[in-house]
Amino acid sequence: MKVTVEPGAFQKLIGYEVAEWGAGYAIIELILDSRHLNRYGNPHGGVLMTLLDAACTRSGTVDPETGENKKAATVNVATSFIAIAQGDKIRVKGRKVGGGRRLFFAEAHAYDAEGHLIASATGTCRYT
Amino acid sequence: MKVTVEPGAFQKLIGYEVAEWGAGYAIIELILDSRHLNRYGNPHGGVLMTLLDAACTRSGTVDPETGENKKAATVNVATSFIAIAQGDKIRVKGRKVGGGRRLFFAEAHAYDAEGHLIASATGTCRYT
Amino acid sequence: MKVTVEPGAFQKLIGYEVAEWGAGYAIIELILDSRHLNRYGNPHGGVLMTLLDAACTRSGTVDPETGENKKAATVNVATSFIAIAQGDKIRVKGRKVGGGRRLFFAEAHAYDAEGHLIASATGTCRYT
Amino acid sequence: MKVTVEPGAFQKLIGYEVAEWGAGYAIIELILDSRHLNRYGNPHGGVLMTLLDAACTRSGTVDPETGENKKAATVNVATSFIAIAQGDKIRVKGRKVGGGRRLFFAEAHAYDAEGHLIASATGTCRYT
Repeated sequence: MKVTVEPGAFQKLIGYEVAEWGAGYAIIELILDSRHLNRYGNPHGGVLMTLLDAACTRSGTVDPETGENKKAATVNVATSFIAIAQGDKIRVKGRKVGGGRRLFFAEAHAYDAEGHLIASATGTCRYT
Repeated sequence: MKVTVEPGAFQKLIGYEVAEWGAGYAIIELILDSRHLNRYGNPHGGVLMTLLDAACTRSGTVDPETGENKKAATVNVATSFIAIAQGDKIRVKGRKVGGGRRLFFAEAHAYDAEGHLIASATGTCRYT
Repeated sequence: MKVTVEPGAFQKLIGYEVAEWGAGYAIIELILDSRHLNRYGNPHGGVLMTLLDAACTRSGTVDPETGENKKAATVNVATSFIAIAQGDKIRVKGRKVGGGRRLFFAEAHAYDAEGHLIASATGTCRYT
Repeated sequence: MKVTVEPGAFQKLIGYEVAEWGAGYAIIELILDSRHLNRYGNPHGGVLMTLLDAACTRSGTVDPETGENKKAATVNVATSFIAIAQGDKIRVKGRKVGGGRRLFFAEAHAYDAEGHLIASATGTCRYT
């Protein structure tokens, strides 16, 4: 499934794509290129945090009963940087793990082109 | 004080500046423009996380005794989104709060143009 | 200032005291003894997390205008373990740093008997 | 599998048991009783944080090749409180998700007697 929404300016700047998006989950993909690199030649932590946050937030916005796509904002997110990405593709899987009418909780895991876990995040979001 | 290092590609993409940088602290500034906005017209969380992470990491790299600027990478960072930014300038203050030879701990606080706290982060970094 | 509330069972089990508690802040103290130790003879991380969480949550419950003491619950908390405690006293200072009608954000810092920062936390809480 | 280690004092105070413990995982269980309750009659957040932290830390200590049980300490942990526990039993599953020689990364999920996810944590630990 894939809910389609016009991407925002920052999403375009970074260049990530929403590969899948439905009730309770979202998958974000990014092809890495030179713009994403830090001073040491690795993907900047801000890139990974952006993808993980985007996957967390989107995972909870689609109403499982009505299909309505609600607005949500991140309250906080805790990110772990687990390994250096190999290859040029990042795939982030986010899923909603709980919550109620006002808040929801999500997890996201980022994998590199070889399928290794490179970063993870847990997020709390609120419906706005 | 201001340690000067050639900015990386992602820093240029986002457009943030290192306003101050010394032993135990770093101040990062960003003039917000349209590229930083999310689908709702607010600064994307990824922008704030990038600035907070950059301030945390830099706060611990300058050796207080030798002035040497060491390399460091973020192990993890927990970010809270406290308020919507007013105005078009973000100022982030990072400071090292502890650590040893291999790891250090940092905090960063992001303020908007009116001086209100809009986001904060705690980070753990390792020397590489 | 010190709001007084009958301690709960877990607070009694751990043995911490609320030293100060007012609008926007709370100070928690604990005299360490053998019950708080882990298998390695250091204070268990759960002890510090409990104190930090208690300081975060309490920091936002007293209404600055009416003095009413509201109920609140922690939504999430990120804790850093910065150094091993020296001596037998822990003092934790929590302060509210932002929020609105439903959620608030807090920080807490734990110091040992020598005044060194040994752990910190950022918490998000909701009024219940 | 179950590595057996003499419990520390704080573990005894709280009363949790290590139900399973092997290379890359650990399962912690607790029968809730009145000592674990906060002022509102719910399990104190400190109880859940203690269990989640214990599961994270233990998940990475058993060497998958030699079976040696290494010492480890938590560097930081981010906990989300997702739902109120129903029933009187908590079961926490921790698993190591990455890391190297000095640090490892873990996740833990806490379930209540009905099998609902009530809290989760991500932790970073170091070998000591």
